[in-house]
Amino acid sequence: MARVFEGFYAGGSWHKTTRTFADFNPATDEVYADVADASLEDVRKAIDAAHGAFKSWSELPFTTRAEFMLKIADEIEKRQGDLCAAIQGEAGGWFGKGMFESGYVPGVFRAAAALSYAPIGEVLPSEHNKVSMAVRRPMGVISVISPWNFPALLTARGFAFALVAGNTIVLKPSEETPYAGGLFFAEVMHAVGLPEGVFNVVTCSRDNIAEIGDELIANKHVKGISFTGSTAVGRLIASKAGQHLKKACVELGGKDSLIICDDADLEKSAQTANFGSFMHQGQICMSVEKVLVHESIYDQFVPMFVERAKKLKVGDPTTDKSNVIGPLINDKQVAQVRAQLKDAVAKGAKVLCGGKIEGRFVEPTILEGVTPDMLVYQNETFGPLVPVIKFATDEEAVRIANDTEYGLSSGVMTEDEKRGLEIASMLETGISHVNCSSVNDEPHIPFGGTKASGVGRHGGRWSMETFTETRWITLERGGRHFPPVF
Amino acid sequence: MARVFEGFYAGGSWHKTTRTFADFNPATDEVYADVADASLEDVRKAIDAAHGAFKSWSELPFTTRAEFMLKIADEIEKRQGDLCAAIQGEAGGWFGKGMFESGYVPGVFRAAAALSYAPIGEVLPSEHNKVSMAVRRPMGVISVISPWNFPALLTARGFAFALVAGNTIVLKPSEETPYAGGLFFAEVMHAVGLPEGVFNVVTCSRDNIAEIGDELIANKHVKGISFTGSTAVGRLIASKAGQHLKKACVELGGKDSLIICDDADLEKSAQTANFGSFMHQGQICMSVEKVLVHESIYDQFVPMFVERAKKLKVGDPTTDKSNVIGPLINDKQVAQVRAQLKDAVAKGAKVLCGGKIEGRFVEPTILEGVTPDMLVYQNETFGPLVPVIKFATDEEAVRIANDTEYGLSSGVMTEDEKRGLEIASMLETGISHVNCSSVNDEPHIPFGGTKASGVGRHGGRWSMETFTETRWITLERGGRHFPPVF
Repeated sequence: MARVFEGFYAGGSWHKTTRTFADFNPATDEVYADVADASLEDVRKAIDAAHGAFKSWSELPFTTRAEFMLKIADEIEKRQGDLCAAIQGEAGGWFGKGMFESGYVPGVFRAAAALSYAPIGEVLPSEHNKVSMAVRRPMGVISVISPWNFPALLTARGFAFALVAGNTIVLKPSEETPYAGGLFFAEVMHAVGLPEGVFNVVTCSRDNIAEIGDELIANKHVKGISFTGSTAVGRLIASKAGQHLKKACVELGGKDSLIICDDADLEKSAQTANFGSFMHQGQICMSVEKVLVHESIYDQFVPMFVERAKKLKVGDPTTDKSNVIGPLINDKQVAQVRAQLKDAVAKGAKVLCGGKIEGRFVEPTILEGVTPDMLVYQNETFGPLVPVIKFATDEEAVRIANDTEYGLSSGVMTEDEKRGLEIASMLETGISHVNCSSVNDEPHIPFGGTKASGVGRHGGRWSMETFTETRWITLERGGRHFPPVF
Repeated sequence: MARVFEGFYAGGSWHKTTRTFADFNPATDEVYADVADASLEDVRKAIDAAHGAFKSWSELPFTTRAEFMLKIADEIEKRQGDLCAAIQGEAGGWFGKGMFESGYVPGVFRAAAALSYAPIGEVLPSEHNKVSMAVRRPMGVISVISPWNFPALLTARGFAFALVAGNTIVLKPSEETPYAGGLFFAEVMHAVGLPEGVFNVVTCSRDNIAEIGDELIANKHVKGISFTGSTAVGRLIASKAGQHLKKACVELGGKDSLIICDDADLEKSAQTANFGSFMHQGQICMSVEKVLVHESIYDQFVPMFVERAKKLKVGDPTTDKSNVIGPLINDKQVAQVRAQLKDAVAKGAKVLCGGKIEGRFVEPTILEGVTPDMLVYQNETFGPLVPVIKFATDEEAVRIANDTEYGLSSGVMTEDEKRGLEIASMLETGISHVNCSSVNDEPHIPFGGTKASGVGRHGGRWSMETFTETRWITLERGGRHFPPVF
């Protein structure tokens, strides 16, 4: 009994498209929804609507925009059950993940409301005794392109701060999660009475994405791009944004390490590794993708980790809340994980637990004997497949952790915080957590990576700075003198 | 008696290249210097040197780096005469411009020293009662690509803040000003004993620039790009930087307006228009390129402006300090100005003063009757050719000012500051000055534009933020709980 969304949302109302596409439940292959497949003309309509709404939205008292954020938060909270079901139905995750994510999203909008009370500029000293100010002001239309793995959370983070700062939004959710990452938000904005055109959602299939994506960057009314997704697509977006001289914030892939030192709490470390590696089948940009274990505790730690991983139940999470490991999002992702597993085993890695792949369901799998020549060592996995790798010194752990093109997040387990911070300071990651896994987020913090993990920071005041223009404004009052020859 | 610079500067010493190229004085066509024409191999050597020096430079006490900035400032101050002569000899400007520029540069380094005392991060609240910090840290090698018009000033602004933040530098100056915008700084850094490899300069001719420019972006050790130059090149650089997921700050062209309201001080306005339009032959990114005059004062203002412009003496500034209007930088720029002038006159514009072009010397030229179909209305001129355009209302002035792809700076002359700020708030420029021209700069302010004038901000803490990575670092102390199923 698929839901039907025949229209995209622009200018405060729904517009029927000529075609729709099927949005599948990855656990069952049932059609979750029939969804509007927007055309170039459709996305232009949405951008025009956002452009038309910019002036009045940006000129509202900031408190009015902040109050809308609070109403949005309340509305999402009221509809948590719907959102959780949609997150599970479209993206195939555990009930606990759906509840966490749907429960987290209201907080993103509350953080946006709160941060809009912060200063929007500074008064600067002036050599000529001018009144000299640096003032941030909203830019206009921001294009938001969001992913499927945490569709509601990452979408919300991608636009909430830009929106409260006075920009207007055109959102294109992933074709895997058009409702939880897109149309749901249109319903919410409509319900709270957000002014027409301030928030717009365009859904499209993979067939149209290249054309729609280009327009979301190149259109003259678009002033900034907020992207969360793969590194390959992120490079294309950042390059096109550069060509058009538009600001872009791109948050991309990762190959994050969890380093377990010899003095770590092993029970806590095993739980941290298990959560970090297998939460949502490892389909998190900041998933733990290498567990680095000090050689002196390796033999003690590994069975503890394996034992915990083995207990994670695999199966359709939409019919059984105890199924913690649901399906991967699609067959392409399964093929990638299968290729990495096959390659590792062929090159001599040993499967300590899991290893079974049935349809889109992949058992939590721990490998040992993984070496740098294996795909699973270098490439992002984005699945429940993780190597445990032995190290002898902190320097070696850092070297292995940094031996990747990515630099998103990291974790260091040690009872010695000084040692933890020293290791963290050597890791080439945008984020580092002592005594926690790489998987961490809060709405108000600077989220983002170095190297191939992205450019810029999402979240809190960092998003607000990215999606505003800083203007230097002065008032000359007689202190500036030109050379008399002029 | 040309100077000879046979080498580039890398790792604290000079390295001879296989070829050199001629650096001309645009006023006389004499060779000012023979300069090293670096190859791909040479630029890689410079990048490797910068990479090798990064760790120790970034780990110095910040005060030590700040003290180097103060020494650099003092050294440049001592050598102001040399620098002024080089600025004039290579770029062909007025003595007063050379003195201003060479006198300004020490202040850039002093501002950099001062700003390194500012906080490098924040302590954030945490939902899990973690210790949660946002900390900025230097990135590594920054490539600096600088222009010829204010070679010393814009080069210094392009790297001083990145350098004091702990990054190391590879500088490629314009082939028009390899000494004043490049090798001079190498001499200064050498004289003050900056550690080897921290600062490197590679000069090259137009023949090699495509290859060298690519390497300055794509090389794996390069983490950020600081560019000041044309919009066409800026698009290429920002696009390549995006493809390689590197941070770039690009400060580009402009088509700035000076708006003269009916209540403005006309004497001050005429002087401001004259300075803003003709300083350094209009070869400033933030030059006044449209003088917009209220219809009620137009007939009174225009003769005052014309009278002042006519008094500006044209001629070789390297032999006569009273020559305020020197040559344009090269024949290409002359051809561009000639084409704009010819096009305007052909389409009905009237030359109110000037209009003579002899060699590279262009008389200060004021046009009236300029319409939007003319090249001079839309394209950046970068020469001493400016239209005066009548307006009837503030809204019309704003519309004309915004009627350009650029958005760098602007000026508004009015005795009513409230009105000035209202107009400024409607201008789509990164910078706006009430009762001053668009031409203004101080080292510690956010300098940069919107639209085709660039992405990002140079100067002060804005440069320091651009050329650092913000890391989110936490210490978990028992407040974060995982779902028990893990």
